[in-house]
Amino acid sequence: MLMLYNDTIMPRHLFRVDLEDRGYQFGDGVYEVIRFYEQKPYELDAHLRRLRDSAAAIRIPLPTTKEQLAANIDRLLKQSGCQNGIIYLQLTRGVAPRGHLFPEPAQPVLTGYVTPVERPVDALQNGITAVTAEDIRWLRVDIKTINLLPNTLAKQEAHEAGAQEAIFVRDGFVTEGSSSNLFGIRAGICYTHPANHFILNGITRRVVLRLLDAANIPVKEEAVSKEELYDMDELFITSTVQEVCPVVRVDGRTIGNGQPGPITRQLQAAFERTIAGGQPLLA
Amino acid sequence: MLMLYNDTIMPRHLFRVDLEDRGYQFGDGVYEVIRFYEQKPYELDAHLRRLRDSAAAIRIPLPTTKEQLAANIDRLLKQSGCQNGIIYLQLTRGVAPRGHLFPEPAQPVLTGYVTPVERPVDALQNGITAVTAEDIRWLRVDIKTINLLPNTLAKQEAHEAGAQEAIFVRDGFVTEGSSSNLFGIRAGICYTHPANHFILNGITRRVVLRLLDAANIPVKEEAVSKEELYDMDELFITSTVQEVCPVVRVDGRTIGNGQPGPITRQLQAAFERTIAGGQPLLA
Repeated sequence: MLMLYNDTIMPRHLFRVDLEDRGYQFGDGVYEVIRFYEQKPYELDAHLRRLRDSAAAIRIPLPTTKEQLAANIDRLLKQSGCQNGIIYLQLTRGVAPRGHLFPEPAQPVLTGYVTPVERPVDALQNGITAVTAEDIRWLRVDIKTINLLPNTLAKQEAHEAGAQEAIFVRDGFVTEGSSSNLFGIRAGICYTHPANHFILNGITRRVVLRLLDAANIPVKEEAVSKEELYDMDELFITSTVQEVCPVVRVDGRTIGNGQPGPITRQLQAAFERTIAGGQPLLA
Repeated sequence: MLMLYNDTIMPRHLFRVDLEDRGYQFGDGVYEVIRFYEQKPYELDAHLRRLRDSAAAIRIPLPTTKEQLAANIDRLLKQSGCQNGIIYLQLTRGVAPRGHLFPEPAQPVLTGYVTPVERPVDALQNGITAVTAEDIRWLRVDIKTINLLPNTLAKQEAHEAGAQEAIFVRDGFVTEGSSSNLFGIRAGICYTHPANHFILNGITRRVVLRLLDAANIPVKEEAVSKEELYDMDELFITSTVQEVCPVVRVDGRTIGNGQPGPITRQLQAAFERTIAGGQPLLA
């Protein structure tokens, strides 16, 4: 299996993460998960811009240009032979004797590899269930860092409660899912948390906002309470892997009539067309 | 150089962290930094108990018993030949295809290695300066996890402001340092943040509480405001690496008379005696 290491494509079994890679000791890094369909990356440029922005936010220099990175991803994809899946990219501040201060000069470590992942057909068709969880994460979750322990704990809790996603609630207000953004529909209006430092502004979230706009569906980017959440006519999450996925039950309460709603279906269809179209919306 | 891997001592250059070690992709792990003086680990058992407790809090099974681990640390220390330094121990949830849910069964990865570190003689003598920083960390910093990005960012900010430590302030109240606990003395009373989920209950913090008790110095474990902080007669931080270290200036404001204070000096002397004595206080 091949992987990307900075500007090189190499066999994965030859790559070695150092014990003192700051990604391993501090979670000092950022990442992206990029979908590809029939070997074509979806919204690649938006993902790479966000990687650049995440890296800038915590001041890790990118060891390659966006253009070189895109070319390497293309090579990696072709060489993988994989049709549908994800590219996982991670950038850490690299290897240095352990200490909190940034090493000078930084020698960032960029890695990437391809994993086959099929579309979650069943979840897209029938919806998933969720539970709420206290949002105890740090206050800069708008940066896509690998400090993801609270997200994994919440997802695991949801799983053990028989659900597929945890929906974070901070001070009584819904923020987002443990690995997704969240949208609700109530009386024809679409609600989602504003893109501030309490949520990660997902690429799929941004695509869906474009689709809502194109469909003339009114959108309010404002936080809703847990009670308002239960009362939505429709709910769905968005993520690179889960796409536009209906949520039909939260904390054991049925949302709407318990079936994926009509606006969710409309958005799913519109989202499918963006996949088939192959043209980025977020250029 | 030798290192510990689960229950084996092996050459470090032969060890390979996998790309998909959950420590590297999620910060899904816990750690300890243990001081040794003249090859004798300081409060070893308290550190190993805390490692066990941290691991239990996020449900990572320890791949070895506390007794085996202590024996391996002893071997590692002897083989290193190093007189004064630290043992860094890290435990992650191990390698699994990337996904938020805990892998079943878990195959935890425990690593450890020795680094020579001398005592910070100059800082202990003259004190350090600090700046305050907004405490934006998650709400379970009582667990000693490797999700340390906010700590590194704060420490770096302090460094760039010409200071040696960042003191976190949450909602106007002082919590702790970016890699230390904080104590203040005002009118003969010692103040420090209570050991709840807003701070990491340091081993050195706990030793110092014993020393304060033994010296009949009254202690109030309560949060103080930033203004009260500036107004302390004496300030010091505690940590495994920094020991009991005076803080003589915060945000450019002189603390007390700008010199390490008498109670700080008394505690430093008492702490020295615990090193020389070689008997754990926290047994």
